[in-house]
Amino acid sequence: MPLLTSDARGVYPIAPTPFLEDGRIDTASIDRLTDFYLGCGATGITVLGQLGEAPKLEHGESLDVASRMIARAGALPVIVGVSAPGFAAMRALAREVMERGAAGVMIAPPNSLRTDDQIVGYYRQAVEAIGADVPFVLQDYPLTFTVQMTPGVIRRIVQENASCVMLKHEDWPGLEKISTLRGFERDGSMRRTAILCGNNGLFLDYEMERGADGANTGYAFPDMLCDVVRLSAAGQREEAHDLFDAHLPLLRYEQQPGVGLTVRKYLLHRRGLLGSPALRQPAAPLTAAARAEVEHLLARLGRHDPRARLAPQSS
Amino acid sequence: MPLLTSDARGVYPIAPTPFLEDGRIDTASIDRLTDFYLGCGATGITVLGQLGEAPKLEHGESLDVASRMIARAGALPVIVGVSAPGFAAMRALAREVMERGAAGVMIAPPNSLRTDDQIVGYYRQAVEAIGADVPFVLQDYPLTFTVQMTPGVIRRIVQENASCVMLKHEDWPGLEKISTLRGFERDGSMRRTAILCGNNGLFLDYEMERGADGANTGYAFPDMLCDVVRLSAAGQREEAHDLFDAHLPLLRYEQQPGVGLTVRKYLLHRRGLLGSPALRQPAAPLTAAARAEVEHLLARLGRHDPRARLAPQSS
Amino acid sequence: MPLLTSDARGVYPIAPTPFLEDGRIDTASIDRLTDFYLGCGATGITVLGQLGEAPKLEHGESLDVASRMIARAGALPVIVGVSAPGFAAMRALAREVMERGAAGVMIAPPNSLRTDDQIVGYYRQAVEAIGADVPFVLQDYPLTFTVQMTPGVIRRIVQENASCVMLKHEDWPGLEKISTLRGFERDGSMRRTAILCGNNGLFLDYEMERGADGANTGYAFPDMLCDVVRLSAAGQREEAHDLFDAHLPLLRYEQQPGVGLTVRKYLLHRRGLLGSPALRQPAAPLTAAARAEVEHLLARLGRHDPRARLAPQSS
Amino acid sequence: MPLLTSDARGVYPIAPTPFLEDGRIDTASIDRLTDFYLGCGATGITVLGQLGEAPKLEHGESLDVASRMIARAGALPVIVGVSAPGFAAMRALAREVMERGAAGVMIAPPNSLRTDDQIVGYYRQAVEAIGADVPFVLQDYPLTFTVQMTPGVIRRIVQENASCVMLKHEDWPGLEKISTLRGFERDGSMRRTAILCGNNGLFLDYEMERGADGANTGYAFPDMLCDVVRLSAAGQREEAHDLFDAHLPLLRYEQQPGVGLTVRKYLLHRRGLLGSPALRQPAAPLTAAARAEVEHLLARLGRHDPRARLAPQSS
Repeated sequence: MPLLTSDARGVYPIAPTPFLEDGRIDTASIDRLTDFYLGCGATGITVLGQLGEAPKLEHGESLDVASRMIARAGALPVIVGVSAPGFAAMRALAREVMERGAAGVMIAPPNSLRTDDQIVGYYRQAVEAIGADVPFVLQDYPLTFTVQMTPGVIRRIVQENASCVMLKHEDWPGLEKISTLRGFERDGSMRRTAILCGNNGLFLDYEMERGADGANTGYAFPDMLCDVVRLSAAGQREEAHDLFDAHLPLLRYEQQPGVGLTVRKYLLHRRGLLGSPALRQPAAPLTAAARAEVEHLLARLGRHDPRARLAPQSS
Repeated sequence: MPLLTSDARGVYPIAPTPFLEDGRIDTASIDRLTDFYLGCGATGITVLGQLGEAPKLEHGESLDVASRMIARAGALPVIVGVSAPGFAAMRALAREVMERGAAGVMIAPPNSLRTDDQIVGYYRQAVEAIGADVPFVLQDYPLTFTVQMTPGVIRRIVQENASCVMLKHEDWPGLEKISTLRGFERDGSMRRTAILCGNNGLFLDYEMERGADGANTGYAFPDMLCDVVRLSAAGQREEAHDLFDAHLPLLRYEQQPGVGLTVRKYLLHRRGLLGSPALRQPAAPLTAAARAEVEHLLARLGRHDPRARLAPQSS
Repeated sequence: MPLLTSDARGVYPIAPTPFLEDGRIDTASIDRLTDFYLGCGATGITVLGQLGEAPKLEHGESLDVASRMIARAGALPVIVGVSAPGFAAMRALAREVMERGAAGVMIAPPNSLRTDDQIVGYYRQAVEAIGADVPFVLQDYPLTFTVQMTPGVIRRIVQENASCVMLKHEDWPGLEKISTLRGFERDGSMRRTAILCGNNGLFLDYEMERGADGANTGYAFPDMLCDVVRLSAAGQREEAHDLFDAHLPLLRYEQQPGVGLTVRKYLLHRRGLLGSPALRQPAAPLTAAARAEVEHLLARLGRHDPRARLAPQSS
Repeated sequence: MPLLTSDARGVYPIAPTPFLEDGRIDTASIDRLTDFYLGCGATGITVLGQLGEAPKLEHGESLDVASRMIARAGALPVIVGVSAPGFAAMRALAREVMERGAAGVMIAPPNSLRTDDQIVGYYRQAVEAIGADVPFVLQDYPLTFTVQMTPGVIRRIVQENASCVMLKHEDWPGLEKISTLRGFERDGSMRRTAILCGNNGLFLDYEMERGADGANTGYAFPDMLCDVVRLSAAGQREEAHDLFDAHLPLLRYEQQPGVGLTVRKYLLHRRGLLGSPALRQPAAPLTAAARAEVEHLLARLGRHDPRARLAPQSS
């Protein structure tokens, strides 16, 4: 399998982990999701991210989910989240998924890191653990991980570790960060890395204009993300914004911390991509009021985007 | 002056503190802003909030800003933020502004509070300090203050302190919290309080439908907030959402932590309400790229809302 | 094997995980340590705690370390730390070690918990995951986990979960907490639980007098801890304090966050209990200055306690 | 008045703020304390620190307390804590106390700082606010302020700001930090600063040996601290440790977070230095059990140090 490089671009959806109602892995939905990503214009897939409920899986389950998606995705590169409380577990999973054909891995910082040196040191040790031959994605998500990486720290990590090929950018605010990092590349102080944006895409419209290469997030309409990235890259600015703005009310709703994944899985279930909207515990419930709000948002979105005109739900 | 009660409703804009370019208080802009609030349908004003740069003022300045706005606002109730590192300073400011005609005060929790009992105990001590005769607003803003209040904790504070008459609701996610609190009122376990929503209004559309009484936030188009609250209260649901959705791209942009206030002051300056967009240090700058994005957002918004069709800026 | 009950008392040393210089598990040292605990008066052992470097092990390694110690310990009850990022991994390890003869498990709270309800809810879900038949130790260690449990929260957990039989008490300050919890037992609002104290024993002298049942910590002289607990229980107050105070300078040194485990393993190596002082990464180094300080502390301690008169180190 | 310089050494006690039982400032006790510091060998005083209950005072009170102590201290240099939520209030207090004869000010970092650049930037702005002519003490106290400054960050602050003349060192662990900073001075990468240690002196014995210049902390026996610093500086190592170790059980007890200041004020009251042990709210109470423990510790200490043989308390 080709390895992930800093030329990555486009949309890498963050795949949710599908569960059956009884909590077991739903393999049929893994396949269905993967096929959908293949068909909707995604250029890669990330599995076992934070919103892939990775921490809720046993080691064997993680390996099964990643392996199945890698096999099904064919030529589409698959990145596997390998964040773990310790380097031994991280190394084990990283080596196993790379053997099974992953294109690279993603590593989030543990929330105990505070100083610049601690952050840089952590990634140095992580690379020693997984091996310098494994391309990795640096996840910069302070809201969830409480670790704040300045552009200077990201540059140190990129320069120290040739295997750091992509940034999953989800700082907030984050637009200036993209500009600063691209400036580092222009002034020659940092080699190029791919920058794909997270945060459910809440600022994807302007992130693309600041120099991002695409999206690496889990919004329930990745096909919309693909279109926005394509339109933006093609210079069709107002069309990109029009499409994005039509989705913004729903996208914002799905972006809520905690409850967002419940909304996302509900939407993917409504789209027929997940057999069940079930999450493993702990999970926020979808109340009747929230469900009605999501349906209201869908109905309003359907006026602008036919993708949101879903068949009435069976209830 | 009439005191704040739990019947408060409508829109209480969070007033920014206007500065001259040299850092001194801009009193002319205080008057201009106040007049604008009076004219646009606001039902009250909150001054010296977190985004009023309250911590950057000396005690005497705080008193001057609050006093001037109270005097200018006439019959419009003014709430004054009195959060302070200690109760002595809190009491001093609270007593002084109440003497000058404030309708009530707002108290945010210090970010050292963790357990339920610590939070409840803090507000008990705060009320002892300022006096039980001073109506106060409970500010629930975990993203900034890192203090997490469950609905049960809010109920304890409300039930223990008769002077707690309003909740500035800006938890995130927060929709279920409104429903739960209104449920407490219905089941008789909590007396009614006003709930006005913050978070720049990012979820005001559905917050109104969940039972909120209005908005208590600083978005640069408070006139839009007034309209949305009015439309929603009048049952004109789709009209409320249409107007809200038109503003959402800009509103989201202004809601960014840190840089948001810089954007807000720029917009208020562009609207002619502030003489200068200046902030006191520390403050995030508005880069040329960000400024262009804000102008782009304004131009797009102007197609839907004539309020955003601003005269070209002098530069 | 008999299961852990709320009658637990005495000293349960927190066993370090011994490593060879190359990072592999040092099984001979596991046996040696276990034999030492058996001989020095320990009434139980806790393995795979935070300072047992549990997060640095792979799942299979964790199982091997725990199994070996359980088998070697014979009739001595062994508690196994099963804290994990998710309930699936926690359940897997808990069920496996219980099958191999563990007396119970220990569960630390994830550092994302803030409100009382979140903490109580977490332990409810943990018990659902591991099974209500598995006795567990509640670890209350705010300094490391940043989770603050009031006595009231501990009572809720104890009352809700019959399988919660012991508290690893390491709040700081914590003396009043012991008094409050014992008061709950006296007033009938909480059933009795064992309270064994951590924090390297920094307050063990007075903790015993407040009603603690013993120590559950990893200080390199667990034999001293056993003596202090015995003397204190026997009413030989001043003798208990004299012995404790003689160790306090060294104990305090070992209690330092981060570097403490490095000191502890050095001391256990000096005592001949560990084949190597090695830690897995990430680990704080023992500088030459620190090593000299530890030797100085040992030499001074040796005047009062012959256990500290160690053979000169080979170097 | 002479200004604070990097030649500061010896013991600068952190003065508590004495209160009357009704909460007003106890000026007689300020005088008594100051006279005691003058007589016991202190080389300076720090007032309005975190444990001087500075955040609980109104601005006018802060100024009164500092002024009175400065006037009474005569030739003894007085450092005044001026930490504040904003730079305007910090500047106001700093300029006022310098006019009244303070030798310098102390600035703690706000707990929102995370990255290296944020910390360095904060002190740059603070110096702009108070003026580069005002010598300041950098307070490095991560346990309370949650701000982690690496040695490299401290070096950047020292090198950027000529007015940074002293470090109040209370990182934990902190011994290696002293060695590293002194190493920076030796290798010429950092100019010399005074390093005086806090943390209630819990590691003062070895901190002196690592190169600290003394203590800057509030333990209730500053006279002991003076002796330890003197003995250590004179090379009487074992005598220094003997004295220190005799105090360690009590010192450790007083060092407990939260309740420690209550213990300290009780002890200073027992020594006849404070007219009342009263704290302002919020404050931890001294329970009967804790009081008995402190008396027990005093009685044991009295066997070794006559200073602890206090007259029986009136009760």
